[in-house]
Amino acid sequence: MLAGSSLIRKMFEEGARLKAVHGADKVFDFSIGNPDIDPPPEFHRTLRKLLDEGRPLPHGYMPNAGFPDVREKIAVKAGREQGVTLDGSHILMSVGAAGGLNAVLKAVLNPGDEVVVARPYFLEYRAYVANHGGRLVEVDAMPDFNLDVDRIADALAAANEKTAAVLINSPHNPTGRIYPAETIGRLARVLEAHGKKTGRYPYLIADEPYREIVYDGKVVPPVLAAYHEAIVVTSYSKSLSLPGERIGYIALSPAMRDKEDVFSALAYTTRVLGYVNAPALMQRAVAALIDEKAPAAVYAKRRDAFKEVLDGAGIAYVDPEGAFYVFAKVPGEGGSDAGGPGGDDRRFVDCLKQHLILGVPGSAFGAPGWVRFAYCVDEKVIRASASAFKAAVAAWTAAGQKG
Amino acid sequence: MLAGSSLIRKMFEEGARLKAVHGADKVFDFSIGNPDIDPPPEFHRTLRKLLDEGRPLPHGYMPNAGFPDVREKIAVKAGREQGVTLDGSHILMSVGAAGGLNAVLKAVLNPGDEVVVARPYFLEYRAYVANHGGRLVEVDAMPDFNLDVDRIADALAAANEKTAAVLINSPHNPTGRIYPAETIGRLARVLEAHGKKTGRYPYLIADEPYREIVYDGKVVPPVLAAYHEAIVVTSYSKSLSLPGERIGYIALSPAMRDKEDVFSALAYTTRVLGYVNAPALMQRAVAALIDEKAPAAVYAKRRDAFKEVLDGAGIAYVDPEGAFYVFAKVPGEGGSDAGGPGGDDRRFVDCLKQHLILGVPGSAFGAPGWVRFAYCVDEKVIRASASAFKAAVAAWTAAGQKG
Repeated sequence: MLAGSSLIRKMFEEGARLKAVHGADKVFDFSIGNPDIDPPPEFHRTLRKLLDEGRPLPHGYMPNAGFPDVREKIAVKAGREQGVTLDGSHILMSVGAAGGLNAVLKAVLNPGDEVVVARPYFLEYRAYVANHGGRLVEVDAMPDFNLDVDRIADALAAANEKTAAVLINSPHNPTGRIYPAETIGRLARVLEAHGKKTGRYPYLIADEPYREIVYDGKVVPPVLAAYHEAIVVTSYSKSLSLPGERIGYIALSPAMRDKEDVFSALAYTTRVLGYVNAPALMQRAVAALIDEKAPAAVYAKRRDAFKEVLDGAGIAYVDPEGAFYVFAKVPGEGGSDAGGPGGDDRRFVDCLKQHLILGVPGSAFGAPGWVRFAYCVDEKVIRASASAFKAAVAAWTAAGQKG
Repeated sequence: MLAGSSLIRKMFEEGARLKAVHGADKVFDFSIGNPDIDPPPEFHRTLRKLLDEGRPLPHGYMPNAGFPDVREKIAVKAGREQGVTLDGSHILMSVGAAGGLNAVLKAVLNPGDEVVVARPYFLEYRAYVANHGGRLVEVDAMPDFNLDVDRIADALAAANEKTAAVLINSPHNPTGRIYPAETIGRLARVLEAHGKKTGRYPYLIADEPYREIVYDGKVVPPVLAAYHEAIVVTSYSKSLSLPGERIGYIALSPAMRDKEDVFSALAYTTRVLGYVNAPALMQRAVAALIDEKAPAAVYAKRRDAFKEVLDGAGIAYVDPEGAFYVFAKVPGEGGSDAGGPGGDDRRFVDCLKQHLILGVPGSAFGAPGWVRFAYCVDEKVIRASASAFKAAVAAWTAAGQKG
């Protein structure tokens, strides 16, 4: 379990090592989704204001779901995004999206239940599901990395009433895809039909930390408006650059059948999994910053820079519609030379590392033959990596021709 | 699961309701261990300073175990308290003690393993152990609520090598007991002998959030110095009055056999349980406040006030040596009238509630016939409750004589 636990974290640590040896400015570290952009200035002003206000103490216990006034504020914003009317009874503050997902999975899973996910996906989903006695069922995405709703329908049919949930992530890590409204609508109809047939309506869990980081005027379609058993889990890790602060929330569809039970179950799992509640001061901070926007424009410029770099090196990729990842195809010769899927992306990542470029093999997301680059780094670093990328591809191609 | 989940939380919510009806100053709420004392002024000064310093950003990801410099600082303090030499490799920052306990239990439990705990105990331990496929085995404490080491030895012998850990809590919730060094020493020898015999050394997990809240010059004896497989889990919830901020840590015995493996497992469980890391800003804050002391003197005065109140009402109790709880015996007549253990404390709590006094039935800790009062409330509230206590006991006695 430990050995295969996280290629991403390994790259993160490898990056730190290489920087110590070669100097931080010589290493092109695109390994981890750790925003380098400061939280907005308003964030620190807000914290100071909260500290000055003093009472009521913002550091004590509160209901496990979070401060009621905070949840009311979040509800208004989440409702607007999701095309539904929400109030505080639909919101539970969480310890980031990862804490929220664990709380949700513990609440909805019976032992042996299945959770369907589209491959590629953030591989820790597998651990989250296993934590609570569930089994992750992977189905391939479409070639363009849109959801393959037919495959999901097949997985539901095969599992009959054992499917507790379908877990999606849009904008998508690692591909940067946004699932179109039409796809979400089709998925909702499949889930609805499955529920009618089996008597068990699978939850649609939408992991949405990148909702605000979108390009070219795109909008992430709502899931709460699309399906009555939908649950949104999100965080401020990416939108406000607060990944270390562990603050996010869970939002429930107002049309959910057992809404009160699900809410109670989530308050309970939040408590007994040891979160108890989302960090208090950060709850107040994100409520005060409800109108703050993610720095999507900054990421858009970086995306453009990264595309230029990859184009220049002759590396193909999925055009990112959101999030701050680009999913790049391992160049042909080396890829085919590696002898089937699985090996090549790891070898290409090693080759990149020789040129002090850090990316994460697609295998870490269940997609061998691809590499993920995180562009939540300064645009200058991205542009400076151009010649290293060219050199790496040249070396890779040469090695491929030799091999 | 939900229905029996938490009497404490129920009282907490009942308290809020009663205060809304009768006015906050008319309700004597001793239900929950939510410190009413402000965090020390130095805490807010420290947060401001951290905000002013700006870079390096305190809000990003860091190793799952926490900021290395923070862990080094914590290690020095924890080592001093525990009578051993620690460094950062022995410390993992956690999402409070509850998050730390869950991370530890997930790391050390195999399916079906047992965890031994002395009754009474904080009932959520049961859920924490069940979360990770374990089974909680309760053994009664001594009549004076010290650990009954012989009973623990019997439980170990009965389980053979199925015991993963013994879980203790000192100063103790709900009794206020501190386990003496001699008891910890005897327990360590029992664990050592059991390990020699079975080949499996149970971990000794010490939940110590009240370590600094002690009275009459008492000191909580170290566990890391006493036993090589000891793990301390603690938080700043009580000592710095930060329960809502979810900040604590795990400390490993430097003599632990598989120390590196346990550390890696804990970093992994911290990540996949969705904590990812302890809240970043609070990590920096508690490291900066390393020499700050808990307001034990304030709690000592409250303890004295509460003892006077209970003495005045003729209610017997365990003299608290630490923490901020007093465990009081349900008065005789009503108790015996209730027809055996289990009913009486709930009925007595109902009777107290009629007099606007909120406590938690001992049943919530596996000890029917007792009531827990939390005295982390203003001394004035404690003193003002004297006549309500007297009236409640009078009503209780009268009802008992009638019934």
